[in-house]
Order: sequence, then structure tokens, then C-alpha cells
Amino acid sequence: MKLTPKAAMLAAIEEGKKGSGFVSPNPLVGCVILDRDYNFLAKGYHARLGELHAETHALKSVTDTSRLKGAHMYVTLEPCAHEGRQPSCAKTLATLPLKSVTYGLPDPNPKVSGRGVEILRAAGLEVVRFAELQNELEELAEIFLMNMREGRPFVSVKVASSLDGQVALADGSSQWITSEASRGHVQSLRGFHDAVLTGAGTFHGDNPRLNSRDSRFADKRLPVILLDPDGSCVAALPGSALLQVRPAADVFLVTKPGVKVLSGVTHIELSMRDGEFDLRALVSLLPAYGVHSVFVEAGATTVSAFLRQRLCDRLYVFMAPKILGKGLGWTSALQIPSLEQAVRLENLRVEPLGEDFLFTGRTIFSTRTLPKSLG
Amino acid sequence: MKLTPKAAMLAAIEEGKKGSGFVSPNPLVGCVILDRDYNFLAKGYHARLGELHAETHALKSVTDTSRLKGAHMYVTLEPCAHEGRQPSCAKTLATLPLKSVTYGLPDPNPKVSGRGVEILRAAGLEVVRFAELQNELEELAEIFLMNMREGRPFVSVKVASSLDGQVALADGSSQWITSEASRGHVQSLRGFHDAVLTGAGTFHGDNPRLNSRDSRFADKRLPVILLDPDGSCVAALPGSALLQVRPAADVFLVTKPGVKVLSGVTHIELSMRDGEFDLRALVSLLPAYGVHSVFVEAGATTVSAFLRQRLCDRLYVFMAPKILGKGLGWTSALQIPSLEQAVRLENLRVEPLGEDFLFTGRTIFSTRTLPKSLG
Repeated sequence: MKLTPKAAMLAAIEEGKKGSGFVSPNPLVGCVILDRDYNFLAKGYHARLGELHAETHALKSVTDTSRLKGAHMYVTLEPCAHEGRQPSCAKTLATLPLKSVTYGLPDPNPKVSGRGVEILRAAGLEVVRFAELQNELEELAEIFLMNMREGRPFVSVKVASSLDGQVALADGSSQWITSEASRGHVQSLRGFHDAVLTGAGTFHGDNPRLNSRDSRFADKRLPVILLDPDGSCVAALPGSALLQVRPAADVFLVTKPGVKVLSGVTHIELSMRDGEFDLRALVSLLPAYGVHSVFVEAGATTVSAFLRQRLCDRLYVFMAPKILGKGLGWTSALQIPSLEQAVRLENLRVEPLGEDFLFTGRTIFSTRTLPKSLG
Repeated sequence: MKLTPKAAMLAAIEEGKKGSGFVSPNPLVGCVILDRDYNFLAKGYHARLGELHAETHALKSVTDTSRLKGAHMYVTLEPCAHEGRQPSCAKTLATLPLKSVTYGLPDPNPKVSGRGVEILRAAGLEVVRFAELQNELEELAEIFLMNMREGRPFVSVKVASSLDGQVALADGSSQWITSEASRGHVQSLRGFHDAVLTGAGTFHGDNPRLNSRDSRFADKRLPVILLDPDGSCVAALPGSALLQVRPAADVFLVTKPGVKVLSGVTHIELSMRDGEFDLRALVSLLPAYGVHSVFVEAGATTVSAFLRQRLCDRLYVFMAPKILGKGLGWTSALQIPSLEQAVRLENLRVEPLGEDFLFTGRTIFSTRTLPKSLG
């Protein structure tokens, strides 16, 4: 089957997604190889940290290597130039009789950026930066790009609300607002990240496990970051669902300095400002624990705090086809002083999930800091 | 081009929609005719009250009438049996050499229901009630079906909100939350209904015209029903935008009994209950004014009142890709006592409109009355 370059790059993006949750801190990368006549030849992806890169994964499945002569490779990210756990992809490709390599994004890693292209060009290959699908390519690599560009973990915030923006009724009841299909998707999203973050309110109210019941992630370590300024969760932690499904060290308990915690849990002491943690300071500590992406799954107070501190890179809103009236809105602790300062969503997509709809988009903040309250 | 029965019925539904806003109190009806070999032959729709019905509109475009021999007709509603402004369609069809007539829904009008089928069968035609697309067929005819089944106007409620369910900021600012594409679509929706309804708050705050700037409806009479219990709008009405674009008689001013109003406007006096109009009593008065469908375009108080009184048949939520924080939610005056009593939306569809999304669905209420307030 012949493929256009765009179809090949789209297929490479789909390949890349298959590594979600397994490659941190590497990027998700996918690759498609077409033969000299643009017939499909092979595809591959970076499946797991320390294992083959997408290009070599795709090459491995080519049994008749004579078909690589004059072939065209499409890869979502510039092939790497440096030797790490794996040999340099650019150097490997330079030894092959490929005609062209088309890549989606330049590598933002200063160790690699542009060097992969140089190696390939020096070997006589045509190297093309793909001009289309930039949003899709950025989205595939968004965790890695944020890690590289801003030197901090990528933060996703999840909300499950009614059509009128409520996460609970006035009396606090909130179980099962969204459907089973939505809740199943949340299980996968947890696994796509390095850690899940929640607040003391959710811990006390729901006693959640916050692991991933997506079978792909059955063996994945998934720490929970629990925001608990005053240590209110300490007494209940030993019997909690959180500790039933993970070792104590994988509960990162974030408290004010001087709070006594349970031995065994990972204790992060952080000073507060205006009664709130500095969440940017918090996430800057996480890479030391191997956490390069965080999935925030919490109540309105914590969600609003992340929005107010403009620390939300991607928003996932699971919206149920229900109207709940005046209850608890998911932004009830956020106030926006003017319409120009509204938080916007870019590249917003909406997809049906059972009877619900999932909105997801990149969050764009105005440059001004949002006040905690106007009241 | 050959069409399957389903494709023919879908095309008939699309035809029927073309009459939106022009056929009240008749139903929207579309029709497709395939020849004996199921090739497309003709299509038509009921375009305007008093003009041809869909079946005869389609038949009129068949120039080579010999192709009607053995032909198959697909029509969204049972052909009418009674003679009104137009001759009975069933009797007309009975004289033609058609092989079959497939109809989408039985006519809910007791004067017609089943009689059209009888006339056709008596004439030897195969008559088939179509088994699929029932939701789409019901939606096409929803205004007429409500008029017939419940003897009251169909009520659509429109909301323009942010992703977090807010229609305004805390300070009340709300202009242009949604995009130009959404606002353009609202112009068409107004024209699809017999009247627009709003509240005194919107009148005072926005001085709206509430006509349809969709050019198809340039000549359409579109009364406005203004809920103004205390007559607070009376003084401002003469210079208002409402009266610039319509005759005074097409402003239906709804007040408590005994309020003095402007001469010339249509005055509807209605008693209140718990500080609120009985909206079911109000809409029951409207057919006498030629109003069989109402488009509610108002603030949170009026929208919440319609929801609380369970008088909302279809909801249109235009959702902008923005987060506004704690402001004014569109259901801020509605309280739901338990999750089981949440208002649900059925056959909810979402479609992109510029950068916004339009949610629309049929509203389903729990059987229990919703309280005005729990507080």
C-alpha cells in the first residue's frame, strides 16, 4: 500500500503513542518506513525506557533488507545523535541505503538538536523537516518538550464535571457523575504519567487507590503526591487504599515544615504562601524522584490552585450529559478579574466516551498573575 | 445513483430541515423518491405553511413521470389523510403507480394518524414504517410532536458558557464569551422558532434586538416574550432595540396582574407563585398568539426557572474554550437535591462552531419536582 508523506507521519504519530507511560524521561517517538516507491515497509516506536528507539524498532521488523535501498523514513522527532542506553540513531541510519529521512520536530535537547540532521546529511541522505501536523507532533512529545524547554515536569489536570461545570452537589455528593467509559479512560491517563497528585480533601472523602487499573500498567510504579499541609492524613494513611496498592515510599506526603509524618512515606516539606503551597516549587522537586509528569486528580480547591498558579499544561475535562445546578464548581476557588484574563484552551478536542464527552486541550494563561480571591 | 433505504431516509430528513422556521404549526417533513431500481429520482420538503407538502414538492420535480412506475417513496412522516390548505397527500399518492411508500413516524395528529397508511394500502401500495433513525426522525418533527402530544409549545433553552459553566464573571461582565460562529448560529436558531423569550435582567443589561440576522428570516415575524413581573422595562421600552426591529404588538410583556404597561405592546398578565411565574401556564397561552415554539435566551435566573419548572425540551449550550473561574453559573438559581434528580440530556450531540462547541440534546427530568432552593 502506497502512503503519502502525511499519512506516513500520521501513522508514525499513532505508533509513538503506544509507548505512553513507559518511556519517561525519554520522548514518545514513532517511525514509519516506506520503500523506494512509497509502499509501506515497516513501523516502530520507542516502547520502553532503555529499549530500542523508534527508528531501530521499525528497522528490526524489515526482513528483506534489500527493500531499504532508496527507502523513505518518517520519524516524529529528529533522530538522536548521542550515544546513551542505545546507539545513536543518526549514526545507525547513516550506514543504511535510505534515500530520505523526514522528521517531525527538531530535538529540543541541546545535546542532540540539529546534530542528528548533520550526521544524516553528511552521509548523503536527504533530510526534510516535515511542515505539517506540528500540533499533533508537539502533542505526542509534549511531556518531553516541557521537561526540556522549561526544565520542569509536565502537569495534566483532570476534571469530571456536569454540563454546567459542577463536580459535586451542594451537599458534597459526587460519586459517579461520569460514566464507566470515562472512569476507564482515567485509569489509562494515570498510567501515562509518572505520578498522580491529589489533595487531603479527596483522600479523606474518597479513600482512593489512584493506581491504574489499565492492565498495561499493572506492573508500573505510580507514586501518589498527597498535598497535606497539616498532616491531617497521617493517622488514616496506614489503613488507606493508597497504601494497599503501593509501597509507603511511593506516597509523597507534602506538608508544611515540621509536621510529623508516618515513617516509610516520602516526606516533602514545603513552606506555604498565603495559605497555599507554591506548586511550582513543589514540581521542581519531583524530577529528583524520577517524576517528569504529574496527573492532578483532586477536588475543586486543588484544581483551582493549579490553575491560579498557572501550572496546568493540559486539561482533561470529562463532561457528563447532566445538569447538577448550583453545587460545587470545579473552578469555585478561582477568580478571573477580566475576560481578557480568562484561561484559554488551545487545540481543544472533544471526543465521545460512552455517554460522556472528553474535552482535552493545552492550557494558555494570560501573562498576569491571577489573584487568589477578589472577595 | 442508487441509494439504500437508510440513505434515502437520511436525505429526506436533511430535506425536511430546510423548512425550519417557516412551517409552524405544521411539521417539518422531507421526502425522497427513488425509481423502481432505487436510483435517485427526486426530493422535496415542506417549505412554508400553506405551500406544497414534502411529497407533492418532490413529485413536482419529476419531469419524466413514467419513472414513477414502480418507484419507492421515503417520507419522514406518514402522508396526511385530511384535506387542509393542501389536498390529502395520501389520496394524491394513491393515484400514482408507485410501488412502495416508506414513512418515518406515524402522524401524532389524531385527525390523520394511521388514516394515510390505510388510504395507501387500499390503493395497493406497499406501506412500510421505517424501523431505523427514529431519534433523528423524532428530532426533525420535535416541535410538532410536542404540540400534538402535550398540547403546548416546544421550549428550547440556549446558554452560552465557558468550559466551567460560567455565563459571566463575578462582576457581571459577559460580552463575547462565545465566538462569532456561535453567535451566528444563534441567529438561525431564533429564526427556527416562533418567538424568543427573555427576562428583564437581559433587557436592562444588554438592550438586545433578539431578531434573527440570518437573511433567510429577514421577513419573518419574530415576537419577543419579555418576563417583566413588575413592569421595570416599561419606561425603557419605547427607545429599546427590541422595538426598533419589530412592531410594538410583537413585544409580549408578561407582568403580574395590575401592572401598567405601554399601549401597543401585547400585555399578558399572569399571577406569580413563590415569586416566580408559572411558566407552564405562560406557554399554554402562546398558541393563541400563533406561537408553537419558544427560544429562551436569557440570564441564569430565567434559565434556572425553566429548568426548575421542568419546562425545557431541548437545550443548546454554546461552550467557549475558556475557563472563567467563580462567576455566575448558568444554573446558579437551580438546586438539585440528589444525583438521581440531576437533569439528563438524551441524544446529546456536540459539534464544533469556530473555536467553540455546541452541545444540544433533549432534556430529561426526573419525575419529582425540583425545589426552588434548599437554602
